[in-house]
Amino acid sequence: MMSTFPLPDASIEAAIAAVKFDADGLVPAIAQQHDSGEVLMMAWMNRDSIAETLRTGRVCYWSRSRQNFWRKGESSGQVQMLIEWRVDCDGDTILLRVDQQGPACHTGRRSCFYRRADTEGLTITDPVLLSPEALYGNKGQTPGF
Amino acid sequence: MMSTFPLPDASIEAAIAAVKFDADGLVPAIAQQHDSGEVLMMAWMNRDSIAETLRTGRVCYWSRSRQNFWRKGESSGQVQMLIEWRVDCDGDTILLRVDQQGPACHTGRRSCFYRRADTEGLTITDPVLLSPEALYGNKGQTPGF
Repeated sequence: MMSTFPLPDASIEAAIAAVKFDADGLVPAIAQQHDSGEVLMMAWMNRDSIAETLRTGRVCYWSRSRQNFWRKGESSGQVQMLIEWRVDCDGDTILLRVDQQGPACHTGRRSCFYRRADTEGLTITDPVLLSPEALYGNKGQTPGF
Repeated sequence: MMSTFPLPDASIEAAIAAVKFDADGLVPAIAQQHDSGEVLMMAWMNRDSIAETLRTGRVCYWSRSRQNFWRKGESSGQVQMLIEWRVDCDGDTILLRVDQQGPACHTGRRSCFYRRADTEGLTITDPVLLSPEALYGNKGQTPGF
């Protein structure tokens, strides 16, 4: 019952069969750092990106804006290795327990959830670890969503 | 900068202004147990359920199936108290850090993400803490989604 990758084809098929994709063929996927428990980001997967993720052990989302695979870290170098793939009770959300190298957020922060509602309004709580320029160089745009 | 509730109206307005609702006026919300880091569930919120949650400090989702407020725990007694409300970089996902009493899942498990893809296929990893009958009695249906 190990989660080593590639998973066998039968396991990949069972995983995909458990997912209820939306009208666009997509399902939201939450990425959580496996050891610290930090919730890093939420993005979308389709059937093919789930299969690729379970084959390679490296997280591959589906970019809704680019309508293409979004292999996390492809541009920034900050890859997400898959530790464990989970699906919820009604099959409409995936939980990816990952090992995220460096920042998960395109702003250079560890987590995308760096803004908190509090008595002051909306407060930025997390520091920038790496500037977007350092992450993406002079490519002129950030990848992904 | 405390997250005590009710938050001031200005904070509630700032929180809602940061959210990019989808075409149905909804946004996915991830619930995470604030101290253990467990990801418990994902459900949906609209503008009004966010406002109610930030006013009361008790999590209120929007039920897509019932098209009505879904005050978590209303039927099961397993309420979710809000510790912290966060929004992601592009405003299309909310992270609720909560204190969940008992099971979050309608199956009676702590988390909805109790199925894991592994070499055996799709494995149920988490025990049932309370039977659905104990949670919902003879009401004939489970609430929520």
